[in-house]
Amino acid sequence: MANTFGDKWTFTSFGESHGRAIGGVIDGVPAGLQIDFDLIRRELLRRSGKEQIGVSPRPAAENDEVEWLSGVMDGVALGTPIAFLIRNTDARPDDYEILRHTYRPGHADWVYQRKYGIRDHRGGGRSSARETAARVVAGTIARQQLNNHGISIHAQLVQVGEETHPEAFDNVIRQVREAGDTIGGIVECAVNGMPVGVGDPIADKLQAHLAAAMLSINGCKGFDYGTGFRGVALRGSQIYHPNEVPCPQSGGIEGGISNGLPITFRCVFKPAATLTRLYGGRHDACIAVRAVPVVEAMTALVLADLTSNILLP
Amino acid sequence: MANTFGDKWTFTSFGESHGRAIGGVIDGVPAGLQIDFDLIRRELLRRSGKEQIGVSPRPAAENDEVEWLSGVMDGVALGTPIAFLIRNTDARPDDYEILRHTYRPGHADWVYQRKYGIRDHRGGGRSSARETAARVVAGTIARQQLNNHGISIHAQLVQVGEETHPEAFDNVIRQVREAGDTIGGIVECAVNGMPVGVGDPIADKLQAHLAAAMLSINGCKGFDYGTGFRGVALRGSQIYHPNEVPCPQSGGIEGGISNGLPITFRCVFKPAATLTRLYGGRHDACIAVRAVPVVEAMTALVLADLTSNILLP
Amino acid sequence: MANTFGDKWTFTSFGESHGRAIGGVIDGVPAGLQIDFDLIRRELLRRSGKEQIGVSPRPAAENDEVEWLSGVMDGVALGTPIAFLIRNTDARPDDYEILRHTYRPGHADWVYQRKYGIRDHRGGGRSSARETAARVVAGTIARQQLNNHGISIHAQLVQVGEETHPEAFDNVIRQVREAGDTIGGIVECAVNGMPVGVGDPIADKLQAHLAAAMLSINGCKGFDYGTGFRGVALRGSQIYHPNEVPCPQSGGIEGGISNGLPITFRCVFKPAATLTRLYGGRHDACIAVRAVPVVEAMTALVLADLTSNILLP
Amino acid sequence: MANTFGDKWTFTSFGESHGRAIGGVIDGVPAGLQIDFDLIRRELLRRSGKEQIGVSPRPAAENDEVEWLSGVMDGVALGTPIAFLIRNTDARPDDYEILRHTYRPGHADWVYQRKYGIRDHRGGGRSSARETAARVVAGTIARQQLNNHGISIHAQLVQVGEETHPEAFDNVIRQVREAGDTIGGIVECAVNGMPVGVGDPIADKLQAHLAAAMLSINGCKGFDYGTGFRGVALRGSQIYHPNEVPCPQSGGIEGGISNGLPITFRCVFKPAATLTRLYGGRHDACIAVRAVPVVEAMTALVLADLTSNILLP
Repeated sequence: MANTFGDKWTFTSFGESHGRAIGGVIDGVPAGLQIDFDLIRRELLRRSGKEQIGVSPRPAAENDEVEWLSGVMDGVALGTPIAFLIRNTDARPDDYEILRHTYRPGHADWVYQRKYGIRDHRGGGRSSARETAARVVAGTIARQQLNNHGISIHAQLVQVGEETHPEAFDNVIRQVREAGDTIGGIVECAVNGMPVGVGDPIADKLQAHLAAAMLSINGCKGFDYGTGFRGVALRGSQIYHPNEVPCPQSGGIEGGISNGLPITFRCVFKPAATLTRLYGGRHDACIAVRAVPVVEAMTALVLADLTSNILLP
Repeated sequence: MANTFGDKWTFTSFGESHGRAIGGVIDGVPAGLQIDFDLIRRELLRRSGKEQIGVSPRPAAENDEVEWLSGVMDGVALGTPIAFLIRNTDARPDDYEILRHTYRPGHADWVYQRKYGIRDHRGGGRSSARETAARVVAGTIARQQLNNHGISIHAQLVQVGEETHPEAFDNVIRQVREAGDTIGGIVECAVNGMPVGVGDPIADKLQAHLAAAMLSINGCKGFDYGTGFRGVALRGSQIYHPNEVPCPQSGGIEGGISNGLPITFRCVFKPAATLTRLYGGRHDACIAVRAVPVVEAMTALVLADLTSNILLP
Repeated sequence: MANTFGDKWTFTSFGESHGRAIGGVIDGVPAGLQIDFDLIRRELLRRSGKEQIGVSPRPAAENDEVEWLSGVMDGVALGTPIAFLIRNTDARPDDYEILRHTYRPGHADWVYQRKYGIRDHRGGGRSSARETAARVVAGTIARQQLNNHGISIHAQLVQVGEETHPEAFDNVIRQVREAGDTIGGIVECAVNGMPVGVGDPIADKLQAHLAAAMLSINGCKGFDYGTGFRGVALRGSQIYHPNEVPCPQSGGIEGGISNGLPITFRCVFKPAATLTRLYGGRHDACIAVRAVPVVEAMTALVLADLTSNILLP
Repeated sequence: MANTFGDKWTFTSFGESHGRAIGGVIDGVPAGLQIDFDLIRRELLRRSGKEQIGVSPRPAAENDEVEWLSGVMDGVALGTPIAFLIRNTDARPDDYEILRHTYRPGHADWVYQRKYGIRDHRGGGRSSARETAARVVAGTIARQQLNNHGISIHAQLVQVGEETHPEAFDNVIRQVREAGDTIGGIVECAVNGMPVGVGDPIADKLQAHLAAAMLSINGCKGFDYGTGFRGVALRGSQIYHPNEVPCPQSGGIEGGISNGLPITFRCVFKPAATLTRLYGGRHDACIAVRAVPVVEAMTALVLADLTSNILLP
């Protein structure tokens, strides 16, 4: 099940970046949920980064039109699997002919060839970030369901390189892009309105599910929540106080279970491996920018799954 | 399956810290594996931290004697489930009577009570770190199997508070303990001898499984691998070089799949919530110390599971 | 995961019978497998029953053209998920308008409405046997992989009503159809070339997986293997003989594990619930006829899954 | 997960028949459930068949005393995993020394040796029916939970050989035993009080889960429900009538989903393979007799799992 997220509210992803289509099958959406197709379009546009600096121009040329194949009738979920596809209209496989026998450093090309003995060399094939468009479609449906229960998810870019002032991010990214280089970034995410009791102790801790989901996003190299890595410098006496239960610095999770406070976590994204100065072509200078809606989508997938036996449509 | 780790090579954990016993069932160990009972004893001793500074004296009083219930005949695995238990000989439930109606800040007490409506208040019950002893037993068997295939796992404490010089750790922890306080730490882990091709793209990435396993350890607040959080300050041109495939700074994983280089990752542990200055009793000043063998055990569980269809006994 | 078969070699099915399309995602096909598209077409034709007596004329009007969306390049599996769809070109939703507020006896209409509060009333929606076309596509790919390892699957109709002589089946079915009635049947399946050792004791017995797969086929009311229900009248001394290991009457499975002998099992199909004399329209007089390739397909799905860690492409 | 039943309400079984102990871990029992230890003892006694004809005397010599290891405090489930064991007090491994190099026809000995290269030859080891005692413990807890919601399960022996009159069963079995032979039987099971809506279409049909559970019981060779195999001789017009929704002959399941009518199914058990006339020793003449409480236990496990997100403690 290497391409399925979740246990009860599941999303199965398919598609190579320059094949015929990408898409997925969503299973577990409760019957009766109204699907907001406009919101899905807007989220896909956000992921495509059309108005953002430092992103590859390919998405700008594509409309990411979703074709709905099943599971929806008159705009309402039937409770049956929702299948959809997005055709790869702007695929230019010929651009990538040179890569048939070349392995790019920092990419999955080489391990794919070693593991499978075959690969779609066109544009990264299955390992391309294009696959995340399908996750955004599924994640947006998950978010709608969560929103109906007062749970909201908001992610934002909080660091680019060493820069932590958002108003300076565009500038930093522009300089990096002009140098034909790339740069890393940190995305922070907050979940508000969580009920108490989501997650299970030991092997199904809420933070473990969130970490796995974030580490499954292309280029993500780390995850922390609550005090996280920065908390190593703190003393226990600075965090815990006798009358504070649940703990305000817990990041919203204690013992693997949501405690009703906002959930807060961070993901770090590496500098992209495709350097324009080396390869030419169309590539992102800071992949963390377009990761923001993907972080939200993956968070929604995890929470829709873990709350599936708690929340109704 | 809130208490089962893994899909094919699985470990199901059971037991409250002051109930009759803790233990587990291991399923998927290949028939014919020689079990090294001495190694298991040594690893349990390491986890108990008998000779280490800043750890609770409870483990020192317990022998953590493992009773093997099934799955092993003449010291060799039968291929059937291996069940074992460790009795809680030193349990002193009365010490905890005061906690029946009290919630400790930074603990799982409150969320357990809210989620289940009932809890074992004695010593943290199920959320106690004592449960990790069972993980160490299972993880050590996983390690033996991996060792037979040349895969070795080594973790160590690399930071305590802001201190990064190992020779100073004891001193820092002693001071914290004397102050009745607690402190965080970072554990680094390296896996050597990994074959190429372990892990799957998209939903079953190797780093996602490792992250979930680490975040399931008590007190772990974050995970990163390769360049990790520190890599945010790097430029792509500092990491990737045309002739370097696979990438030396990849942390041993590209596209979710092991690339044959050593796997390197870090976990951060928070300052423990039980402050001696507040509660008295027997508590760790730096839980990262005793987390080291648990990090190794959890790593072994992940790798035994993901390689179960590749490696033979 | 109500729409996914298998654990490691999986098939996720989607589509309502009169919606836009049916189809599926196959995950776990080993990279390098040559896909025989002609065979898939022939199997779909077999399932459609064009040249058979007593089947609904709808399939005859449809071509069941498969569109491949991902996972295949130059006719070869990439090791990535294989997605496909079959459009519902002959869907006539208006024929079913009368069913919007009517429940047909012996159908899933009523329970769907009760369970989901909403349903696609057109032609059975998700519970229509049309969904099995997607299973035949996936199952045929599974069969190709099994064939490459010398494992072959053959099912046939062995009983219609009380008639057990194949040459008389057409006649019986014709009479039943002319009476506007329906009739049950029994399908027998044999698997040859099985290696020893497939299946696991206790919870993953081979026969348990086969039974679950068969009982998931529309209209199947029972499964037995080896001596089955007929064996109740036998004495042990008639079955077991000291020198016969493995046992020739075992049906190819002992202790939940294949013993290398041919696997033999039977499935019984009920008389279809849609009686032409009551509803008019296009309906099968004996659904067991068209179930034959579906039994083969489901058998292949089970065996591809259970042998996925044993057999290579 | 070859030894775990269920997805959300799970039972993991362990133990060889002549090893130190058998037992299991139950995960998913809702916190607060009162455990009826007396009922568990009575069900174990029923399975042991002490007062029944034609059963092996071994169970009569054992008390099947359950030791509870975790998950229960003051007789109430904590919501944490419930682990238990039953020691093999009457194990006589020496009786079986002759079997170290002998394979019994109709047993799992030979396939175990081939699959694992090693086996516990003592009394069938893992494939012994003794393992079902652990299932009865877990199943009885599941039944208590179901009973609290008005769901009751009742199984009975309805056929021994060709005999269908219960008052004659003892006589038939006695004759078979005196001849040193064995005989098959059919167990029928009814579930009353089922809510509408349990089970999922396509891959998680209720009848598929029940069939898999029954086929996992030692010696079970077939399963059918509703009209089953006997229905092959019926015409549709004899089963379905326009005003009968849901259908009274449905066996309580339509489209894979419970329809609120009693669920009725049958399981056939083969004549046991161990013939006293060949082997001497202590063996059952009709294993269907002691299968009755196991059929009930497995039914309870399936229903507790499938209703786990519907029913509360």
